[in-house]
Amino acid sequence: MALQQQQFFAESSENTERITLAHGSGGIAMRQLVEREIVAAFSNPHLSQLEDQARLDLSELTQLGDRLAMTTDSFVVDPLEFPGGDIGTLAVNGTVNDLAMSGARPLYLTCGLIIEEGLSLETLRRILASMKKAADEAGVAIVSGDTKVVHRGAADKLFINTAGVGVIPQGMDFRVSQAQPGDVVIVNGWVGDHGATVMATRGDLVLDTNVESDCRSLYQEVCALMCTSEIHCLRDATRGGIATVLNEFAESSGVRIMLDQSAIPVRDEVRGVCELLGLDPLYLANEGKFLAIVPEEHAKHAVDALRKLPGAEQSALLAELNR
Amino acid sequence: MALQQQQFFAESSENTERITLAHGSGGIAMRQLVEREIVAAFSNPHLSQLEDQARLDLSELTQLGDRLAMTTDSFVVDPLEFPGGDIGTLAVNGTVNDLAMSGARPLYLTCGLIIEEGLSLETLRRILASMKKAADEAGVAIVSGDTKVVHRGAADKLFINTAGVGVIPQGMDFRVSQAQPGDVVIVNGWVGDHGATVMATRGDLVLDTNVESDCRSLYQEVCALMCTSEIHCLRDATRGGIATVLNEFAESSGVRIMLDQSAIPVRDEVRGVCELLGLDPLYLANEGKFLAIVPEEHAKHAVDALRKLPGAEQSALLAELNR
Repeated sequence: MALQQQQFFAESSENTERITLAHGSGGIAMRQLVEREIVAAFSNPHLSQLEDQARLDLSELTQLGDRLAMTTDSFVVDPLEFPGGDIGTLAVNGTVNDLAMSGARPLYLTCGLIIEEGLSLETLRRILASMKKAADEAGVAIVSGDTKVVHRGAADKLFINTAGVGVIPQGMDFRVSQAQPGDVVIVNGWVGDHGATVMATRGDLVLDTNVESDCRSLYQEVCALMCTSEIHCLRDATRGGIATVLNEFAESSGVRIMLDQSAIPVRDEVRGVCELLGLDPLYLANEGKFLAIVPEEHAKHAVDALRKLPGAEQSALLAELNR
Repeated sequence: MALQQQQFFAESSENTERITLAHGSGGIAMRQLVEREIVAAFSNPHLSQLEDQARLDLSELTQLGDRLAMTTDSFVVDPLEFPGGDIGTLAVNGTVNDLAMSGARPLYLTCGLIIEEGLSLETLRRILASMKKAADEAGVAIVSGDTKVVHRGAADKLFINTAGVGVIPQGMDFRVSQAQPGDVVIVNGWVGDHGATVMATRGDLVLDTNVESDCRSLYQEVCALMCTSEIHCLRDATRGGIATVLNEFAESSGVRIMLDQSAIPVRDEVRGVCELLGLDPLYLANEGKFLAIVPEEHAKHAVDALRKLPGAEQSALLAELNR
């Protein structure tokens, strides 16, 4: 079977199996790529049906809450792999976290791959394995997918889109417009790790740092928050960093947010990368950080609960809200 | 406001507003692109919340059936616009139809745009308007989205991913493995129109034909089928054409399908394009055609019902199944 499979991947002079346009044609090569690589990597009963849509019991969903959360995100990161993760880890956790930010339990994801002709099969396999690992860790299943191959130069190696659904428990309703004067802002740990990592490994510039992407599922941390505090606003600080999210809260809710600069947890390595590249850690992307706005009286309890979770030990109060 | 907006789009020498990398940066230019162009084009109450996820009442879903259908598809078509549709029409109807093929009523879509720097804003606006029109015609809402801008040369103008959910009525359970000897195959009209249209307008080769893409929602036709017949298998014949779907039915169900070549509805123009380009209409992509496998005793009734629907007048019996 390994021999048969080999026939369907073009080999370059270095004997590396690569994706070819035939893998996107709808024919046998595509079917083999989908069945032997993608469905096998994600292995779950929904995908292995090879139907054009997953079919999910609604009765199981209604036991978890009263609203379906639904979201999507496309991932176009360069480089594809970096310390602490890769585009696959991002693609799963990014959508998982967009669901979790509504209080939803993330449940099912779809995965759309756009592969540039010439991508090595080994790279694709590593990224699919990362997606499966991230999905298992987040407790979600990748239940439906689509694969396109575009000609060399028409895409940057690999783009991944994920969409996801989850269920929001009754009574949970966080919105960017719900911040109130007197509330406080909580962040769940070090700021800027992901952005600094990607910047430090991009292109010709390879800085020697120990910093790693913070990419991970935030659902457990959201659960800890929901158990310990009323939540007015909750958003993960991805593109645009914590500064952009704070601006969204302030504008949507009509409040002033005074940041205590000394309270913002930023690693020395991240400050170093920022100084070298002229960046501001508050605007760097994160992939495992959220900002929560909660009533002042619940804040200490919430921060204490977060600090007990692995990865969230540096959770901190960032700011108070004024009119 | 038109003046303000102008500032956020780069202008080329021909005075055309174009997408720039700033539109993907997470800053003000991106926010304006999302709010003024995308959210405005798709206008619905879910999107205008500008939350990172849509929140949908589960009680409304459970009234329609007992299972959630979930699917995704990425669209990478060249050219972006062609007679009878564009990448936006495809992106909506492709996912609507993947849902409808399970018997599901299509309800909610997500939309992930990957835009190449330099795409003209006019083109983007036309495509967003096509998506809105197709969504309205199919009775679905685009409730969540994501926009990325990649540097020139990193994507082919525009890629669109859509994911969707719908609800499958109780008792409906079509699977590719359920074809039985004695069943018959129905197609809902002209075969190969979409593939021939795209081939005839691609690159330097512009053939002068009247053929148009058949891209449209198939949900109404599926409803007509469900009302008139038991359905064993149902699949839309997109990439790979009707030949590929027939092969999937035959292999999954362990049946032989003998095609009556003279019964296959193919327009003369499509035959002409195929002869010029050395293509087989049975392998051409369709975007508004399905193959249904139904018990022989229901077939006439089903075909009669389909033929009354606009676009499906050429519905026909294609084949009988043997062991």
